[in-house]
Parts: sequence; C-alpha cells; structure tokens
Amino acid sequence: MILCDIGNSYFHFYENGRMWREEIGKISNVPEGSPIAYISVNDKGERKLLNAFPHAINLSSYFYLDTIYEGLGIDRIAACSAISDGVVIDAGSAITIDIMQNGVHLGGYILPGLQGYLRCYRRISSRLGQGLNLAVDLSTFPQNTQDGISYGILKSMLMMIKNSSKSKMIYFTGGDGKFLSRYFDHALYDASLVFKGMMKACERLEPISKTG
Amino acid sequence: MILCDIGNSYFHFYENGRMWREEIGKISNVPEGSPIAYISVNDKGERKLLNAFPHAINLSSYFYLDTIYEGLGIDRIAACSAISDGVVIDAGSAITIDIMQNGVHLGGYILPGLQGYLRCYRRISSRLGQGLNLAVDLSTFPQNTQDGISYGILKSMLMMIKNSSKSKMIYFTGGDGKFLSRYFDHALYDASLVFKGMMKACERLEPISKTG
Repeated sequence: MILCDIGNSYFHFYENGRMWREEIGKISNVPEGSPIAYISVNDKGERKLLNAFPHAINLSSYFYLDTIYEGLGIDRIAACSAISDGVVIDAGSAITIDIMQNGVHLGGYILPGLQGYLRCYRRISSRLGQGLNLAVDLSTFPQNTQDGISYGILKSMLMMIKNSSKSKMIYFTGGDGKFLSRYFDHALYDASLVFKGMMKACERLEPISKTG
Repeated sequence: MILCDIGNSYFHFYENGRMWREEIGKISNVPEGSPIAYISVNDKGERKLLNAFPHAINLSSYFYLDTIYEGLGIDRIAACSAISDGVVIDAGSAITIDIMQNGVHLGGYILPGLQGYLRCYRRISSRLGQGLNLAVDLSTFPQNTQDGISYGILKSMLMMIKNSSKSKMIYFTGGDGKFLSRYFDHALYDASLVFKGMMKACERLEPISKTG
C-alpha cells in the first residue's frame, strides 16, 4: 500500500519507509494501478489523484481521534494519531501546534510559518523586507532591523512552544520542523509522523480485494 | 507650532493637545503658512508636506537618543525620547517594542500588527481567513480554527511583551495600543507619545523667525 498525504502544494508519498513528494498536477513516480490510501486538505489535488488512481481509498473516516476541536484538519488528525502523549508540531506553510495527553487531543493553535512571517513583514513595509537571521541572539535585545524581525518571529514562536509543552515530549514534523526541534531538549523530528498516523488508520481497513 | 508625524498611510498632526490625521496626499485642515515641525518615515509624504509648507522643519537631527541600534525609525526614536525608563510599544501596521533604561535605548524588535497577522494567515490558506476573536480564552487550548488563530496571535504577542517588560512600565501608542494595554497592569496608553518626543526635540530648535 502506498500512502499519500495531499497538501496545499504537494502530493507527499510514502511506501515502505521511503518518502517522496510530487507537485500537485502530475504523478510520475507511482506505478499505474498501485493501491493507494490517502488523506487530503486540497480538493483539487484529491480529484487529480482520483483521476489517476480511481480506487485510491480516502482514509479520513478511519481515524478515531478523541477531540472536541471543530474543523481539525485531517493532516493534524493523522499526525496526532501517531502519538499518545506530547506536543505535535507540523511546521510548514502554517505551523500547527496540537497537544495530546493519554490519547486525548486537548486542543491546539496555529502560527504563520517562517516564510509566511517574512512575507507578512515585507508586505507591511519594504524596509521590513529582510531575510531571517537564523543565528539571531535570543538572549539580548536586537540592535538592527533584520535581528529585530528575526527575534520577533523566532522568540515568539519558541516561547509559545515552550509554554505549551512544559515537560512534554515535542514531536516536530514538516519542512521547518528539523530546524525548530534544535531549540528543545525533549524534542524529536519525524518527517513521517503524518504517515505513522495514516498507518494506524490503515489497520482498520478491511483486507483489500485486488481489483486493480 | 504644529507637529506632524508622517507615517506610511497618514499625516498625523498635533497642535496644543489636539490631534488629527489626514490621508497622505491632501492636507485640508492646516491653515496656509502655519509653522510646522515634522518627522517622516515616508519620502513621498514628506514631499507632499514640503510642497504645501516649504518652511516646515524636519526635526530628525534634533533628537539625541542614546542607542547602538542601526536604522532605528525616526518615529521609534521620537516615541522613545518621550520617556526615560520603560517599554515603548507602537502598535500600528507593525508593532515595534523598544526598551528604555535610564535614558538609554537598550534595543528593540518588531512584530506584525494585528491586521498584518490576519492577512498573513489568509494568504497561507483561505481556511485560515478568519477574523480575530478578541475575547479568546488565553488560559486554555483553543478548540476551533478562529480561536486557534486568535490564540496564536494574541498569546505570542502578550508573552513577548511580558518577557520584555518584566516589572517595567509599558507605554503603548498607535491604533491597537489601547486594546493591548488592557492586558497589563503596569501599562498606559498615550496616543501622543511620538508628539511628546517631538516636543522635546522642538526645545532644541532656535527661536523661529516669523517669515511665514
């Protein structure tokens, strides 16, 4: 079974520990007729996948996450399903922070992604159109515009994560997850977190008849 | 003397305790030939003002703020000049946070303004295009998208300000300053903070000959 997580910009694929991504619109590295199970936050991408793979299975109804959050994205549900206790952080175009305890989702929130923040400053004023200084000193007040922006972005993000996690384990995933994980002791980066949750959902599927 | 703070979108005027603003491009409520002292972060706006009031005085060289910050905006310099100790927060299209101690500027940083944040989320995904819930509960994890965004914006902003201010007095100014000031005990809102700094600079001007 090939797993596919359809995001806003990419198809993310997983098969036997191997991961790759393809742009929405063309699927060139999946053999015709392959069995696929997917989740999607992108209707257009879902249609593209189903055109190419009509028998692909939407896993969304096979997750049982204990939560009262209204409108929790299926990618967040999948990532949270992968763990029982800890903080799940998916750092992509947006950064989602979700808190799990004893298998229960306690709630979560959303910050802009690193690139989103930079675009936001640039749009406010061209003077604020600076790159991120990844090495900015967060222990002293900044002394120039680039550091003033970098400090604003990184320190606010890290303080929020620290405040939410306390002594809990933090599970980072997503494009900027590896970078952010370095700031924390009780943290790991797992690029396959969403797929691990999808595998749990797959266990609830009936055995699939090979009609491909 | 009429004071004018030229921002990105507006001329902000001050005369004898009265404040008003006019859109960049037309100045309709200032009598011809009025003596004006100004600061500007907007070259186009400055040209407009000088076209209408050729004798207006640029105050920028009359500030003496003790700082090693490179490229500190003249509006931030003016606001910081108004106080000796405390945190100066100008909450407009961007939110600038500057720390003053014994008349010395210790540094500062920049966060997006409230509207800038909301625009940023909206641009990441239409699903994140929500209004701010000003009454979001910051003491418990959010349970829906609007609260998840509102919590992300407000809590990160308030934690940063708290972390920077410790027990220092916080001086808010700017459009969203009044709202933000409500979250802090040692805080006040002063819409005229920039003008108070400008008045100190004015004291260093030579008496003006009336050549209007």
